[in-house]
Amino acid sequence: MAKAPVLTPRASDFPRWYQDVVAKAELADNGPVRGTQVIRPYGYAIWERMQAEVDRRIKAAGCDNVSFPLFIPQSYFQREAEHVEGFSPELAVVTHAGGKDLEEPVVVRPTSETVFGEYMAKWVQSYRDLPLLLNQWANVVRWELRPRLFLRSTEFLWQEGHTVHASEADAAAYALRILTDVYRDFMVEVLALPVHVGAKTARERFAGATRTLTCEAMMGDGKALQMGTSHELGQNFARAFDIGFLDDAGAQQLAWTTSWGVSTRMVGGLIMGHGDDAGLRLPPRLAPTQVVVLVVRDEDGAGERAALVAEALRTAGVRVHLDARTDTGFGRRVTDWELKGVPVRLELGPRDLAQEQVTLVRRDTGEKTLVALAGVTAAVVDALELAQTALLDGATEARDARTADVGSAEEAREAAATGFARLPWHLLGEEGEAALATSAVTVRCLQGPDGGVPDADLPAEEIVALVGRAY
Amino acid sequence: MAKAPVLTPRASDFPRWYQDVVAKAELADNGPVRGTQVIRPYGYAIWERMQAEVDRRIKAAGCDNVSFPLFIPQSYFQREAEHVEGFSPELAVVTHAGGKDLEEPVVVRPTSETVFGEYMAKWVQSYRDLPLLLNQWANVVRWELRPRLFLRSTEFLWQEGHTVHASEADAAAYALRILTDVYRDFMVEVLALPVHVGAKTARERFAGATRTLTCEAMMGDGKALQMGTSHELGQNFARAFDIGFLDDAGAQQLAWTTSWGVSTRMVGGLIMGHGDDAGLRLPPRLAPTQVVVLVVRDEDGAGERAALVAEALRTAGVRVHLDARTDTGFGRRVTDWELKGVPVRLELGPRDLAQEQVTLVRRDTGEKTLVALAGVTAAVVDALELAQTALLDGATEARDARTADVGSAEEAREAAATGFARLPWHLLGEEGEAALATSAVTVRCLQGPDGGVPDADLPAEEIVALVGRAY
Repeated sequence: MAKAPVLTPRASDFPRWYQDVVAKAELADNGPVRGTQVIRPYGYAIWERMQAEVDRRIKAAGCDNVSFPLFIPQSYFQREAEHVEGFSPELAVVTHAGGKDLEEPVVVRPTSETVFGEYMAKWVQSYRDLPLLLNQWANVVRWELRPRLFLRSTEFLWQEGHTVHASEADAAAYALRILTDVYRDFMVEVLALPVHVGAKTARERFAGATRTLTCEAMMGDGKALQMGTSHELGQNFARAFDIGFLDDAGAQQLAWTTSWGVSTRMVGGLIMGHGDDAGLRLPPRLAPTQVVVLVVRDEDGAGERAALVAEALRTAGVRVHLDARTDTGFGRRVTDWELKGVPVRLELGPRDLAQEQVTLVRRDTGEKTLVALAGVTAAVVDALELAQTALLDGATEARDARTADVGSAEEAREAAATGFARLPWHLLGEEGEAALATSAVTVRCLQGPDGGVPDADLPAEEIVALVGRAY
Repeated sequence: MAKAPVLTPRASDFPRWYQDVVAKAELADNGPVRGTQVIRPYGYAIWERMQAEVDRRIKAAGCDNVSFPLFIPQSYFQREAEHVEGFSPELAVVTHAGGKDLEEPVVVRPTSETVFGEYMAKWVQSYRDLPLLLNQWANVVRWELRPRLFLRSTEFLWQEGHTVHASEADAAAYALRILTDVYRDFMVEVLALPVHVGAKTARERFAGATRTLTCEAMMGDGKALQMGTSHELGQNFARAFDIGFLDDAGAQQLAWTTSWGVSTRMVGGLIMGHGDDAGLRLPPRLAPTQVVVLVVRDEDGAGERAALVAEALRTAGVRVHLDARTDTGFGRRVTDWELKGVPVRLELGPRDLAQEQVTLVRRDTGEKTLVALAGVTAAVVDALELAQTALLDGATEARDARTADVGSAEEAREAAATGFARLPWHLLGEEGEAALATSAVTVRCLQGPDGGVPDADLPAEEIVALVGRAY
């Protein structure tokens, strides 16, 4: 008798499958206030690993971490016209505090360009103070009408970088560096998600930016997820907040700024980018637990030997968990570890032990191998490396198979029903883009002829539009 | 001609000295909304080191990190009578969001017992689910009338642990374990601050707790700073949020909970606990930069050699910074590193290099030694260990010299003018405590006859009250 599936199959209802994974892998719950979320231990462990890997890359790019206030005076938002227009509908406002009404209501930050701008203006005096490279890990609030856990929540966790530069070229180079050396590198090398990088169209740009760069991944249902963005803000915020400096000739200059961020939304991308009908499939470099050692039955010393195997793996630098809950059924425990997407599972019982071997199961392929206990650490390390590569290769193949080169807006609309379409931007244009939007199909990014962020001076006819439906 | 001091001397105006250090060591600025703060790179680097050390100890105590929402329904606060009474005057309330007025206003969390309670009740079903040990790193908001950077800010960063247990004894043991194995261990071993541990009086208890344990440090002006607290909440929140479980006999039981936290306030404690008239003095185990290598003048290869010294230290696991800004005056750079409290300074110029030696200066004592370049790494490692011990010993001696054993409330009031007083609790009592409070003198904690947290069943006449003025 076939057992009932733990999750709704992806093919029958992808959004429902997503909800099931989030609930049953115990990643997050809905918070008590609409659109907020409670991130549970396993979901938070995934986020902590993301933070550690992204933070290391941000610091390597020369940024210092800081902490700015949650509350921003409402007046700050008025100073940059596009910014206030873009964010006003989503703001949460504190009007009452300390037992009385506030004279000026304060906004709960939806993003912090304005308040960073105010202080960066004080800290920057001379060209010697530039570039000023700051980042913060923080929570932000954007009132969402259609919240979904991790993907679109009223409050979310993120990092936001804010930098000041002496020239437009320096600002542009830094925004690109963050996009490629921090975000893309992390997403490809750690998350094993093959992201497209490119520039947003004017329609999709961040409110207040002159250019928005983006990383776009394809999810298991063929839709796009914007995984991270990096903005050239031109002199818009420098002008609004008076961020100026004396150049080396002693002349007063207006500075150039950037901002960029990735958020807990990446957890949603990880679920939908790699998950299958049995649950999560975590890439080994990210996984909080890389290997689980399961004691099948604790007889004839199997439990003790499993503990030794786990200890040897830990010593070798592997993130390992020993599951000795033999009072819970073996099948149920296997289902649970599959749900949680732990990359490698070692199953050890008295029968395996009698043969001095252990069963190694890869989560990404389901492949089972018998491995001699004497060589188990090396076998695990190999399997982890293979799984990391296989997940990236698999996601790349699946994405490319669902990407069509097309020659018209109508063909792009059709292709976007199941995946991405690529077409010359000049064949679509802003009118074509607006028409597609009525079917919820959007230009995810503009790219150069060979993919990637297009040079700012690339002739219009060489620019390619990547089109899809998006989360 | 003596140069003007960079900081207000501590003896002339301690609060002003504190403000000067925070500003001139570039630790933090006031935020735009009253009472909020902007933590600058150096201040945040100190906090990140605190987080890493505390987080490691919290995880070693078995806790998992999670993230709960910033916004809590107002109704949650009503459910625990003392809790709502204690926190109501300090709440910030969001009444307007997403372009319209909210049906039920939401509170910006001042602490999260209520919302953790609501979810822990769902997650705990059976005695097998216990203990449930959770922690979060988060920002909280308490509207402050007299804000001071780090010490008392409207928004601050902290960790808050929330745990559920099957018995009162288990909850009490865990609250004590966090206080001693996590908080005291971190404060003594890393911050080099000799903290008193003890229990708060009923008057000073957390709103909703049955018992509050505390770590109390003495600052450079003889006043006390509460550095961290751990609360036994009895069954107050379990009752209010219906946190129950089936015991191993199948009977429904009400659970027992604890909560505990330390915050960015510890940065204030670090400043005032060790700082001197030249600025911060950071204990080496905490310091984001343990050693600065200063190039005095970049001649005859001094710059290159300094870089090699820094690299060798880095390889040895020392957190080192190379200061090669020879276009800035040497004296000014020394003053700056002293302000920032970097534990060890190495000064290397062409004259030193000619002698194959370097000047090693300890920030804690000001002591200068000439060290052979061949043995500089070992000398630095030694100096860091000595400085760590010397700071703890110095703070302990200073505290004990300012602590008096007294026999009456009046004597306690006098002693508290310059430090701590110890007296038998039964000689003071709740009436005496209330009388002292009119002079801003408070019972910092109750201790056993030999110091430390008193056993819950210790006879009243053996309990000692530690009395002082507090931040």
